[in-house]
Amino acid sequence: MSTTAWMPIPAYLALESRFQRLYRFEHLASIVGWDQAANMPPNGNEARAAAMAELDTLMHAQRTDPALKALLDRAENEPLTPDQRANLREMRRDWRGANALPAALVERRTLATARCEHAWRQQRPANDWASFVENFRPVVQIAREEAMHLADATGLMPYDALMDRFEPGMTSADVERVFGDLKTWLPDLIRTVQARQQAEPPVLQPVGPFPLSQQKALSLAMMQRLGFDFDGGRLDESTHPFSGGVPEDVRLTTRYAVDNLMSSLMGTVHETGHACYEQNLPREWLGQPLARARSYGLHESQSLSFEMQLGAHPGFVAQLVPLMVEHFGAQPAFTVENLTRLATRVEPGLIRVEADEVTYPAHVILRFEIERALIEGAIDVADIPALWDEKMAAYLGRDTRGDYRNGPMQDVHWPSGSFGYFPCYTLGAMYAAQWFATMRRQMPDLDERIAAGDLNPMFDWLKDHIWRQGARWETPELTRRASGEALNPAHFRAHLEGRYLG
Amino acid sequence: MSTTAWMPIPAYLALESRFQRLYRFEHLASIVGWDQAANMPPNGNEARAAAMAELDTLMHAQRTDPALKALLDRAENEPLTPDQRANLREMRRDWRGANALPAALVERRTLATARCEHAWRQQRPANDWASFVENFRPVVQIAREEAMHLADATGLMPYDALMDRFEPGMTSADVERVFGDLKTWLPDLIRTVQARQQAEPPVLQPVGPFPLSQQKALSLAMMQRLGFDFDGGRLDESTHPFSGGVPEDVRLTTRYAVDNLMSSLMGTVHETGHACYEQNLPREWLGQPLARARSYGLHESQSLSFEMQLGAHPGFVAQLVPLMVEHFGAQPAFTVENLTRLATRVEPGLIRVEADEVTYPAHVILRFEIERALIEGAIDVADIPALWDEKMAAYLGRDTRGDYRNGPMQDVHWPSGSFGYFPCYTLGAMYAAQWFATMRRQMPDLDERIAAGDLNPMFDWLKDHIWRQGARWETPELTRRASGEALNPAHFRAHLEGRYLG
Repeated sequence: MSTTAWMPIPAYLALESRFQRLYRFEHLASIVGWDQAANMPPNGNEARAAAMAELDTLMHAQRTDPALKALLDRAENEPLTPDQRANLREMRRDWRGANALPAALVERRTLATARCEHAWRQQRPANDWASFVENFRPVVQIAREEAMHLADATGLMPYDALMDRFEPGMTSADVERVFGDLKTWLPDLIRTVQARQQAEPPVLQPVGPFPLSQQKALSLAMMQRLGFDFDGGRLDESTHPFSGGVPEDVRLTTRYAVDNLMSSLMGTVHETGHACYEQNLPREWLGQPLARARSYGLHESQSLSFEMQLGAHPGFVAQLVPLMVEHFGAQPAFTVENLTRLATRVEPGLIRVEADEVTYPAHVILRFEIERALIEGAIDVADIPALWDEKMAAYLGRDTRGDYRNGPMQDVHWPSGSFGYFPCYTLGAMYAAQWFATMRRQMPDLDERIAAGDLNPMFDWLKDHIWRQGARWETPELTRRASGEALNPAHFRAHLEGRYLG
Repeated sequence: MSTTAWMPIPAYLALESRFQRLYRFEHLASIVGWDQAANMPPNGNEARAAAMAELDTLMHAQRTDPALKALLDRAENEPLTPDQRANLREMRRDWRGANALPAALVERRTLATARCEHAWRQQRPANDWASFVENFRPVVQIAREEAMHLADATGLMPYDALMDRFEPGMTSADVERVFGDLKTWLPDLIRTVQARQQAEPPVLQPVGPFPLSQQKALSLAMMQRLGFDFDGGRLDESTHPFSGGVPEDVRLTTRYAVDNLMSSLMGTVHETGHACYEQNLPREWLGQPLARARSYGLHESQSLSFEMQLGAHPGFVAQLVPLMVEHFGAQPAFTVENLTRLATRVEPGLIRVEADEVTYPAHVILRFEIERALIEGAIDVADIPALWDEKMAAYLGRDTRGDYRNGPMQDVHWPSGSFGYFPCYTLGAMYAAQWFATMRRQMPDLDERIAAGDLNPMFDWLKDHIWRQGARWETPELTRRASGEALNPAHFRAHLEGRYLG
């Protein structure tokens, strides 16, 4: 009798087949969702929304099928390989996400967030905080209940349970540790860099117009260089750029403005980072939860590896310049030095999405501190403006009193009830710095090779350590395996100090 | 007590809600199908095919749910309005189509047609009839069984039951009546027109290159004039032009060749006819079978109303010429007279899809006669080539012996098992002629208004009599209501004689 005798794993295999089916329906949702953003004419929206809702209902029914629970429990006792066991863990996470909340709460949440977000689109330009609060208060109340239910299902603290949906394995204690470190040096760094940059000669802005067809051609050429596989994806346009589609067919979108070249260019570099992660998820596991991208923070670490670590790297900018000249002709702004300075300008502003990599974490820390206190019941919605003003003054030296529009009303996250998401942005920036620190340790000639136009060492490292790992490990374990240590804010600090004070 | 007291119709309402749900899934299938043809990169195909098959399985399960039969039967006895009753009739047709065939037969058919069609793609260019027959014989055998099952379910004759899937209410006796009429005068007409055209000075071909972006701009301008609603649809490109999407969001595709302007232009006009039908289906019934386009023949009558009745009309060509000059500059070929002659050139060829409107019916009659005899068992697959040669000689005066590639192997219909479809093409041409004859009777100034650039009388008539009727009436009844008589080949004859001998 063979020692590798076949051991039956019927429950696990039944689960695999259910998740395979779900994956196919997610494919449909993803492609029609992309189409809605990139192609759909206005009068198609009502029928599209109905079709997508019908599909959502179907998938939710599959995820809440009572038979799943027993299958998950039985599969735990089957003789699985380590990958199968990791896949089973991710199946259970998926199941928990769909089953932790009572249907009545989900319905209340849908109604409350839809109402709040819809009204917010008018209230924000009107700077109408008082009216916003009326809709926002029930959203917060429901999020608190949601956090309690998720805490019950996961054994985590309430705010941690919300965050776990986006960054599995990361607790608010971890976040507090790294953000606490940041807070000790970031405000000073911002002031120092600002003073230094103000003493330098002014940066030249590229002068348009930049014809859109040429911007698109440049974006395509750059994506090619960044390793995007055009046999398994494409570039289109949408109002809000995103990386969508499916791993086998990634749909990346960007947005062009005839007078602003850099924003579409860096936007495309950012989205290409997301896209390359998706295109290189473990092929042999596609269709199973194991093959999903690990987390939102990890995803952001890939877009920021491309946009900030690489995109503002003088060696990479040196390759970009000839491409820009080829597409738009020469102009004084198109030098390596000037474009590098343009990509690394630091300016404490009011708006998160417009922030540079040095001030961005301050926006995130502020939101994390406020929303965590809000979910835990330590503060009330009415307390937000005063806290906002206080923290903006402390972290970024800006006076925001009375400006709700460019203050706590600026993001869609809160009106839509997405509490626990904000930390991912800065965790992503910190992971990206840690990946590059590790790469430089392992490949001391990395920067020379980037400067020589050879991006393969970087791609290969990310492929091996991040992309092809999918969701095999929880984030802390993935981080340790990739870099030999837990998330360490020293790397982000070294990156910023090296780039901005070096 | 009111005389209009509410009468309960629970079974009918349950059916409406089931069909509404099905409509939403069809929406997804249609959009991802369009995307597959218009956008998808090559490596996306495998995952897409799996996702589409999963959706097909789901919709088939909904259509074959045993509960449907009882609901349909109970709804028959409920107090329905005439429209509801028509909707119920179309629900039953849908149900019958999905339930008439045993699952094992459907599976055998899928395998046999996939194998035959796949091999045909190589065998056709190789002119390899002998190998083709090996795969085609089982396809025919299965189609005969399919016809028997459908005949049982419908009470029709076997071939009629196949045809009924595409042209409900039309029997092969009807087709024989109108095609029999055509056969008495068409071969003579072809010879006469050919002799006449050969005696005329040569027609000038437009001289390229025609840049693709300009061709697209011209196509868009023309679609605008043809009443296409761009708030509810769009134009893209695909290898095989088609009109897809959903009534609320029609996705029309075309194909451009830099050296051939007319083919993309007339292709777009043709597809716009299909598209306008879809965009003007009865809005208040969308989601229900009543709001579907009536049939494939009726659909073709709309594309041919646009492409042939209107597209080759000198009054319309006169509007086209300035648009062509605007997009490509003037050239000798761009005159009303020359372009009209170009659009009405008659040449008996071997290939159906390249045929003009005079010779096209001969291709269709030949296929109808052969496939009907094949399904009825009157002939065997081995008899096809001799019959093909004989009929091509008789109807079009062409010698096709030994040329299978441009003979019985030219169309995808037979290898894919679509028997009963061919008649729709010529029925469509005949309906289109009948609609225009009716319009001219009711609006004697129609041609002057077309020549003056006013297409609204034509659009309004088609809207009222065809588009907005959806599937409310079976085809013979719709024809009678629209034109006051049954399908009458005299109108098609008068159209051809007026245009080509007048």
